[in-house]
Amino acid sequence: MRNVNNSKLRIIPLGGLEQIGLNITAFEFEDSIIVVDCGLAFPEDDMLGIDLVIPDVSYLKDNLSKVKGFVITHGHEDHIGALPYVLKEVNVPIYSTKLTIGLIDNKLKEHGMLNSTKRKVIQHGQSINLGAFRIEFIKTNHSISDASALAIYSPAGIVIHTGDFKVDYTPVFGDAIDLQRFGEIGKKGVLALMCDSTNAERQGFTMSEKTVGKTFDNIISEHKSSRIIIATFASNVDRVQQIINSAAKFGRKVVIEGRSMVNVISTAAELGYLDIPENTLIDIEHMKNYADDQMVLITTGSQGESMAALSRMAASLHKKVHIKPGDTVIFSSNPIPGNEKAVSKVINELSAKGADVIFQDAHVSGHACQEEIKLIYSLVRPKYAIPVHGEFRHRKAQINLARQLGIPKENTFMLSSGDVIEVCAESAKVVDHVQTGAILVDGLGVGDVGNIVLRDRQHLAEDGIMIVVLTLEKYSNQLLAGPDIVSRGFVYVRESEDLMEEARNVVEDAVHTCLKKGVTDWGKMKNVIKDSLGGFIWKKTKRDPMILPIIMEV
Amino acid sequence: MRNVNNSKLRIIPLGGLEQIGLNITAFEFEDSIIVVDCGLAFPEDDMLGIDLVIPDVSYLKDNLSKVKGFVITHGHEDHIGALPYVLKEVNVPIYSTKLTIGLIDNKLKEHGMLNSTKRKVIQHGQSINLGAFRIEFIKTNHSISDASALAIYSPAGIVIHTGDFKVDYTPVFGDAIDLQRFGEIGKKGVLALMCDSTNAERQGFTMSEKTVGKTFDNIISEHKSSRIIIATFASNVDRVQQIINSAAKFGRKVVIEGRSMVNVISTAAELGYLDIPENTLIDIEHMKNYADDQMVLITTGSQGESMAALSRMAASLHKKVHIKPGDTVIFSSNPIPGNEKAVSKVINELSAKGADVIFQDAHVSGHACQEEIKLIYSLVRPKYAIPVHGEFRHRKAQINLARQLGIPKENTFMLSSGDVIEVCAESAKVVDHVQTGAILVDGLGVGDVGNIVLRDRQHLAEDGIMIVVLTLEKYSNQLLAGPDIVSRGFVYVRESEDLMEEARNVVEDAVHTCLKKGVTDWGKMKNVIKDSLGGFIWKKTKRDPMILPIIMEV
Repeated sequence: MRNVNNSKLRIIPLGGLEQIGLNITAFEFEDSIIVVDCGLAFPEDDMLGIDLVIPDVSYLKDNLSKVKGFVITHGHEDHIGALPYVLKEVNVPIYSTKLTIGLIDNKLKEHGMLNSTKRKVIQHGQSINLGAFRIEFIKTNHSISDASALAIYSPAGIVIHTGDFKVDYTPVFGDAIDLQRFGEIGKKGVLALMCDSTNAERQGFTMSEKTVGKTFDNIISEHKSSRIIIATFASNVDRVQQIINSAAKFGRKVVIEGRSMVNVISTAAELGYLDIPENTLIDIEHMKNYADDQMVLITTGSQGESMAALSRMAASLHKKVHIKPGDTVIFSSNPIPGNEKAVSKVINELSAKGADVIFQDAHVSGHACQEEIKLIYSLVRPKYAIPVHGEFRHRKAQINLARQLGIPKENTFMLSSGDVIEVCAESAKVVDHVQTGAILVDGLGVGDVGNIVLRDRQHLAEDGIMIVVLTLEKYSNQLLAGPDIVSRGFVYVRESEDLMEEARNVVEDAVHTCLKKGVTDWGKMKNVIKDSLGGFIWKKTKRDPMILPIIMEV
Repeated sequence: MRNVNNSKLRIIPLGGLEQIGLNITAFEFEDSIIVVDCGLAFPEDDMLGIDLVIPDVSYLKDNLSKVKGFVITHGHEDHIGALPYVLKEVNVPIYSTKLTIGLIDNKLKEHGMLNSTKRKVIQHGQSINLGAFRIEFIKTNHSISDASALAIYSPAGIVIHTGDFKVDYTPVFGDAIDLQRFGEIGKKGVLALMCDSTNAERQGFTMSEKTVGKTFDNIISEHKSSRIIIATFASNVDRVQQIINSAAKFGRKVVIEGRSMVNVISTAAELGYLDIPENTLIDIEHMKNYADDQMVLITTGSQGESMAALSRMAASLHKKVHIKPGDTVIFSSNPIPGNEKAVSKVINELSAKGADVIFQDAHVSGHACQEEIKLIYSLVRPKYAIPVHGEFRHRKAQINLARQLGIPKENTFMLSSGDVIEVCAESAKVVDHVQTGAILVDGLGVGDVGNIVLRDRQHLAEDGIMIVVLTLEKYSNQLLAGPDIVSRGFVYVRESEDLMEEARNVVEDAVHTCLKKGVTDWGKMKNVIKDSLGGFIWKKTKRDPMILPIIMEV
């Protein structure tokens, strides 16, 4: 008989620790692998032209027969977004709560994959068995309904993964986080806690979602004669619920605008996560039948995304909503780092059209602050702390909290994506590292844009390109045509005719010198052209365009 | 005799209202123009490859004989940075306070323009006469020493321009803002107040710079055995003074690192704006002679600028300073909007090297909050409010404050750059609009990169370029060579050989069809190539590279 004590649980974050968003973690025990979440990320500033980023799941592909299923904590893009791409290579069943599966189904429909993918709805408190694992879904609170923590039972012991969470004693919909169950499992003994670090640098306690409802009431009552426009995250169903409640309280109709907002709201309403009083919702086409003070418009674009509905309204590009003096626009959101300038641009545009813009107090975070993190640690009392979800600085801040609570330093782990940590009652350590990474999606292409292409795009973006073409006669190597120089993104040529003429002379001299010397290696001639033209342009302009010589033979 | 009552003062913001940073405002009365400030801006995200941005001063060039001088409020880049460029076309004297002129001199030296430019140092309380104007320098507080508000006396009345300012009752160096003088001039009657709006959305009062000194003391005393590294703005001389004071208090030596930091500090020390106790400053080369707990390092890079000293330390690219566990790094700054992600990257890198990173409480703003703005309005009691310095939303917030203080709506003005506002005791209105704009500086080129070039760079950055070259025989129009396709920044070609081969076939078909039809207009043939190849690539990849056909004739 196998000695269970000797068997180790292996935990492998396959993404999400360096590239925020690519949340995906494999749990492996002997012949079984389960995968928690499968998120996508949006491109960094230096990923020019890239649409989105998905995780490299080579490890799962290499161990395909072991993989039993995806277990999903909640329905945000950074936890479900890569599923349609990853399922093409790792087609195993998906397990999650009702709303989460509903949102995943929307995605699978878009990709025409609904029939080829098994999904199973799990309720909070329920468990599923997948190979060597049993996984229990525990109710938590977050900025989307139906979020779960996972208790992962393996022969080596129990791991609790919180997913993204906060502690909300007075949630808008459904129950508060199941703190009792965290305590109960903690009492049994938990090997490792993998806890959300997003707000681990913030002191105190995250406010209840319900407080935002009061803010909406106040703002609407203070702007009785205004049309009210509220931008928030499409996925924050509870936020939308509260806007609808406030609107109804003041006898206003509600219009929903923005593709993702309409999608999420209709899914949530169908599945019973949203309670819309009769005759409250009106179609955007019927807006004109109502006075300004009879309306609340809920829209996407709270992050200043250039194609979202609010940004189009601000830029006068929206076909149906025209911002006018007297409108009150509320940002029910905080800018995600990196979006501050885009949000500010939209606020300026809205203000310039005479709208009153409110961007304070109408938002609370969906993530646990320090006191909530300490609470979860104190209920679970794990042997090992493995912070997840957050940048390095945030995960390190959580480790500082864990240490304050008495977890010894050697039992805390700052992992990198690809690290394989083996965990058992006696010890935990990183024993291996597997291939991971970010795969860039550009249009239909998945992974065909790599570092060389990105580096070229960066170079082209900085200083443009100068193309040198010339035609040589085969064998005789006589110059038949050119050299001609064509540039794009360098300087406005009509205003730089002298420079371009001088550049042509420089190249012509270089070519003639090569030909005189009898150079027949086109690679060598191209290098001479690059060096001479590049040197000339740098001296004259302190710029470094990409130089691309093309030699044709006839 | 001219009727003075009929003469109007014209105020023309030549920049700075849309493109934050390009602060430059002309004041014109009959034959006299004075110019307040002359700042530069850093490029927006969509200005690919641009190094910096300066204002279009066509209006000054067109009225060169009237221009009497530049009057500078303080020595920040967004108020002095464009001087070396603008002086080349508008060479008039510069008037400002001692430290400001010292910093301007550094710039002029770099551009070899020190001898060709007149500068005059003015003291707070002093006035200068320039044409029809008298300009009085009034002491204010800001995040750089020697900042001034300007009282601009014209025959049409007095305008007060605050520059960037805060009210600091307990400044680190020199006197508090001269509130009495604001009151005194206000009592005489002020036409218009042009007041800093940067913090007009923030309630309350900006804390005194001195409070940051206490924070430094606390942090150093709590990190007795650490090497302390503090990043702040090079120009914040008072902040540097306080760091030096705290270091000296704890018997630590101070190292200054980063080119702009060294420059500003040496200028400030020479001019007496910085009091460095003997034997406190050590050269970075001598760091190795001191233990960690004997040192404080002051560095640039508080905004995550990739080439700044702190960023190089964080990325292990700094030759002399290597971050190690136990180091304490303090960000004595807030990220300027747009820099949040860069700052976070540096914090993560520092944390990953084991440094303890502190980024709270070690900074105060240099700009007035709402209560300070109200204070200035109440002392000056202007007839007209013309907010300056800040985005649209900030200037609008100031107008809301002005209206709370009783200034009627029709006396408040949201100007755009180029607006000409005529102001006199009886009325104020925008009467004209002159040419303004942002001139892009790329390397040595000033203004030779325009919208077409930027649009090309954007296109190249998004999807790269495909170049189609072919050689035709003159007159006979026979295809002698090609079509060949060369791409850069599109896809990694070796992994897309099939696609490129198909693309070549598409282009070859298009060319043959043209030749068969006897098309001899190369422009037309190029369009056919663009359309056929572009359509093919879009269908196959959903990407839209720039397509550049080049036809050579031999």
